[in-house]
Amino acid sequence: MVVGLIGVGLIGGSMALKLKSKNTSIQICGTDNSTDHLNEALALGIIDEADDLENTVKKADLIIIAIPVDATQKILPSVLDLLDQHQTVMDTGSTKLGIVNAIKNHRNRTRFVASHPMWGTENSGPKSAQLDSFSGRVAVLCDAEDSAKDAVEKVSEVYQLLEMNLVEMTSEQHDIHTAYISHISHITSYALANTVLEKEKEEDTIFQLASSGFSSTVRLAKSHPEMWVPIFKQNKENVLDVLNEHISQLRKFKAALEKENYDFLEELIKNANRIRGILK
Amino acid sequence: MVVGLIGVGLIGGSMALKLKSKNTSIQICGTDNSTDHLNEALALGIIDEADDLENTVKKADLIIIAIPVDATQKILPSVLDLLDQHQTVMDTGSTKLGIVNAIKNHRNRTRFVASHPMWGTENSGPKSAQLDSFSGRVAVLCDAEDSAKDAVEKVSEVYQLLEMNLVEMTSEQHDIHTAYISHISHITSYALANTVLEKEKEEDTIFQLASSGFSSTVRLAKSHPEMWVPIFKQNKENVLDVLNEHISQLRKFKAALEKENYDFLEELIKNANRIRGILK
Repeated sequence: MVVGLIGVGLIGGSMALKLKSKNTSIQICGTDNSTDHLNEALALGIIDEADDLENTVKKADLIIIAIPVDATQKILPSVLDLLDQHQTVMDTGSTKLGIVNAIKNHRNRTRFVASHPMWGTENSGPKSAQLDSFSGRVAVLCDAEDSAKDAVEKVSEVYQLLEMNLVEMTSEQHDIHTAYISHISHITSYALANTVLEKEKEEDTIFQLASSGFSSTVRLAKSHPEMWVPIFKQNKENVLDVLNEHISQLRKFKAALEKENYDFLEELIKNANRIRGILK
Repeated sequence: MVVGLIGVGLIGGSMALKLKSKNTSIQICGTDNSTDHLNEALALGIIDEADDLENTVKKADLIIIAIPVDATQKILPSVLDLLDQHQTVMDTGSTKLGIVNAIKNHRNRTRFVASHPMWGTENSGPKSAQLDSFSGRVAVLCDAEDSAKDAVEKVSEVYQLLEMNLVEMTSEQHDIHTAYISHISHITSYALANTVLEKEKEEDTIFQLASSGFSSTVRLAKSHPEMWVPIFKQNKENVLDVLNEHISQLRKFKAALEKENYDFLEELIKNANRIRGILK
């Protein structure tokens, strides 16, 4: 099987490494806007050959799109234009509704399978790709009824090779849940980094004193805007909903402290501790 | 040397394990409000014997107080009452100013060394104690000029055995920096957990979808109120300062999204990315 990989960075690269290690008959043809990344991916053995977008699509049985969500939304119609009925296209984006709406009426809609493997790090590029990134994690498959049965089966096989657990939902549900579970974490992390950088002018002190707690809370603040601005843009309404709730939760902590209401503070913390029973 | 350990939980227990492993002539006598914890600490080999507070203090060359900061502030004067001039007392609390102010005029003030080893996890109790917790991390030593030289030397030796890097500052500076670097992370993490628990009623979905990013941002929300309410209480003014700044940083993200000003959003994220150069 030939896999056409559009985007050879962290996500695409990690997928390619795993797919090749599980099935040596898989050939990966990669394409990328960055020639440097493409050469790195070749050198690292992530892809077997490099080509332009059109050739990559034409020669592939399965096309994996692993680029920022705005770019995915933009190129997806022209990728579908190039397809015939035995080819399948899947994406890996962190938002889904904008992407599926962009091809709602496309004649090849059923060849596309919308999906989102729930893994990432604050790093990017082929050098950050890791073989076992996805194992044991969840991949979301969206609006499966809008895709051809054989296309869904092919994508399910890919996620099996990646050792991921498939969960199905609509694109709309996906975008609401990821706003809570992933997108808001990034905003709080960015805002926390900006808070500390604003208040703490002595960078040496941050570096010296930063506890492991701070480092883990602020880790996501290292994530690149090229990926995250498009995500926030596409999921604006849901993210704003959750952000408003988050600010109002922070105001409760502020009120508890200002009024020296330590019983209320304890109650807020005990409520938050319930996350212990949900996240192992 | 006999070390008197007041509080045999995560911090005290981890210190005891390391001190004993580095210097087998160190004997640890432990005391704790919880008989269960005391028995666990004996069974785990964290302490060599258990006794009451007064006997623990009287028989020790060095007394380590590793209990919540409000309890430390409360018992410290009576611990100092029991001392003679060859004994030394140190604490490990996450706030310092309230503690040193409580004994400012005590006749044995110079026998006390205020310090804070910058490590912790969301867990507690002797079972959570880990041998190599502190290695390579920073310990802050506060107001060293208010302590006797030999007492500072003894405490410095303890931190050397723990393989920690000592940084000196005033209690006031300490409390400001930890508000930025540690305390605010806990509040954002608690508030994030409360946000998700409030908005996301389907707990199964949280569990299924929670990405590694979310888990790491929300990890601190598992931390217990017994430890954290007293910290926020003692460091109220600094924490409120930073919390106000944090809310105003979050409002910038909100404004950028509401006004669809994606250049501003990118600018906010790029500023946050500067943390990459500071935290490795």
